[in-house]
Amino acid sequence: MQLHRVGELALLKAVRKRFNTALQRDRSVLVPIGDDAAVFAPEASRLVVTTDLMAEGVHFDLAYTSPYALGFKLVSVNVSDVMAMGVRARYLLLNVGMKQESDEAFFEEFYDGIAAACEYYRISLIGGDMSGVRNDLFLSATVIGEGETFVTRRGARPGERIYVTGTLGDSACGLALLKLLSAAGRALVRRRISGMTPHSGGGEALRVNEKTLSWEVADPVLRRHLLPLARPSESIAPCATAMIDVSDGLFIDLSRLCDESGVGATIYMDRLPRSSAMVQVGALLGCDTIAWAASGGEDYELLFTAPELPDANPAETEGIPVTCIGEITGGDRIVVGVDGMQSPLQPTGYEHFIRNGEQ
Amino acid sequence: MQLHRVGELALLKAVRKRFNTALQRDRSVLVPIGDDAAVFAPEASRLVVTTDLMAEGVHFDLAYTSPYALGFKLVSVNVSDVMAMGVRARYLLLNVGMKQESDEAFFEEFYDGIAAACEYYRISLIGGDMSGVRNDLFLSATVIGEGETFVTRRGARPGERIYVTGTLGDSACGLALLKLLSAAGRALVRRRISGMTPHSGGGEALRVNEKTLSWEVADPVLRRHLLPLARPSESIAPCATAMIDVSDGLFIDLSRLCDESGVGATIYMDRLPRSSAMVQVGALLGCDTIAWAASGGEDYELLFTAPELPDANPAETEGIPVTCIGEITGGDRIVVGVDGMQSPLQPTGYEHFIRNGEQ
Repeated sequence: MQLHRVGELALLKAVRKRFNTALQRDRSVLVPIGDDAAVFAPEASRLVVTTDLMAEGVHFDLAYTSPYALGFKLVSVNVSDVMAMGVRARYLLLNVGMKQESDEAFFEEFYDGIAAACEYYRISLIGGDMSGVRNDLFLSATVIGEGETFVTRRGARPGERIYVTGTLGDSACGLALLKLLSAAGRALVRRRISGMTPHSGGGEALRVNEKTLSWEVADPVLRRHLLPLARPSESIAPCATAMIDVSDGLFIDLSRLCDESGVGATIYMDRLPRSSAMVQVGALLGCDTIAWAASGGEDYELLFTAPELPDANPAETEGIPVTCIGEITGGDRIVVGVDGMQSPLQPTGYEHFIRNGEQ
Repeated sequence: MQLHRVGELALLKAVRKRFNTALQRDRSVLVPIGDDAAVFAPEASRLVVTTDLMAEGVHFDLAYTSPYALGFKLVSVNVSDVMAMGVRARYLLLNVGMKQESDEAFFEEFYDGIAAACEYYRISLIGGDMSGVRNDLFLSATVIGEGETFVTRRGARPGERIYVTGTLGDSACGLALLKLLSAAGRALVRRRISGMTPHSGGGEALRVNEKTLSWEVADPVLRRHLLPLARPSESIAPCATAMIDVSDGLFIDLSRLCDESGVGATIYMDRLPRSSAMVQVGALLGCDTIAWAASGGEDYELLFTAPELPDANPAETEGIPVTCIGEITGGDRIVVGVDGMQSPLQPTGYEHFIRNGEQ
């Protein structure tokens, strides 16, 4: 059934029923969805809040992504910003502007993704708004977190090390791969990446550039792009002096951290952590995986500075891989290439008001 | 200059500079715009949060509204939801999806409206996101408030009175008037309603249905539609048992309050407070002003229930007009017409997924 036949009130009631049931276990929420505003009792002395938007045709393409993945990603990108402050995420609010011609199934799968993300991050959906739109789907989310202390972008000091969690460039690799798929390949991806459990493999493989790519290799990079997971920061925050999440690309986000801290940096390209899946896909596509790691956006890893960490640091103990990729200096921002040559760090990344080709 | 030539980072810097200067006087804000997320120290034990979206072609038409009014209204509709919980509004976050072809002047005037609203409501802009969009302008805002106590929609009990602040239907009247204006008339309105100070009058009058309407009569109803002001609730909250803001129309919002409280109501149509400006415009247009008062949306007045209030009640003392329009009952929801005839209350209002004519 199309959304305009279901009606806003019926949709709101369904959302309210679904999420307020989950809310019963969150005793800090005093007024859930369904009043003029939500009410909660903060449990810590510092509240952290962020909001991000996602616009069809700019941030996502419905030819590539499933409604489930879209919902999940909307939450992840906001949770990532809160986690980058070194606190725990707690509450979510949503704005959903959906085409009236959208199918009810689209709407339900989108909220399946939202619900899965709420479960995964242990956050509560406490409010939002929904409306029809004339053209493109438009989404925004607000995430509120809390903690007793927090970490900003401002605390980096010369002599400290620069660390990053996980691997970089996977999301850019996943996007590059998606762009090369046929319509049938994209449909296969949308079907398979529409849940938290990776597809067990088998069945159809992907055809790219007239070569075959196994699902086991493609899945990790596609998943990083379509269904990214924000990194928990509880184990990192106590030792981090400055922190930012890698959303627009390592170089641009590192530049922001350096701008705010008033420092320089040296980054070693051969240290940028790359996943084996990305390296394999990069080889198949003939792409520069180091460039993806340096400037590809949407990795949602944590970039932070700290005095030198022991190998047995709290993050690694928690199972979060951490790599030292350089150090903070009092001088310029320098990149040391794989060949050992130095060059100035160029803060390349995505600017939303800049058209393709004008950067 | 078009936005895509200015660039997102330059725009963000301008917004950050403008609003963070104002933030210096709000000591509760520990991290303002410019980090992964904002941080504040709550001063009360209850946090209240709401979010609302506004989509071009659904919630607003750029032929009718100035960028200033659009920015101001976006804040008002969210502040109104927070005030309807009986608490004070404190913080604002924005999402702005703007066409790349938009002029920088549009952007600046929009933020003039946001800044004026922040000043008017004494709230601080602490975060947000901006991006280009392919088609329609899309806006959303989140407002956070705080207080020690709050008022929901659930507390109304039989025997209590139903009150409303200010006058009803002015916004619907303003919209009806806008729809009848020529392009030149609308341009005049956009120019004049682009600031907080009412235009001093004189000069051109408006032509409607081949009659002349003085600016002095038109201004109040146009202003209520284009530049609505949320009602402060501090003086009302201590005596209100249930409260909601009138955003979708008196009847639908009263129905929501009754649904949540599990009560009935009797409303007297002859008591619905109407402004003299609306009555004059209604007479000129030949429209039913009582219907506007009953079902017109976007008034942003407060509808609340309470035991009978003395004439010298706290709201009136604060200069907020309050009118008793009926009482809460244990029975059905009844409307007593101007002719004394009773009929069932029909919760008519605007549903965003319902197309025109399908309601």
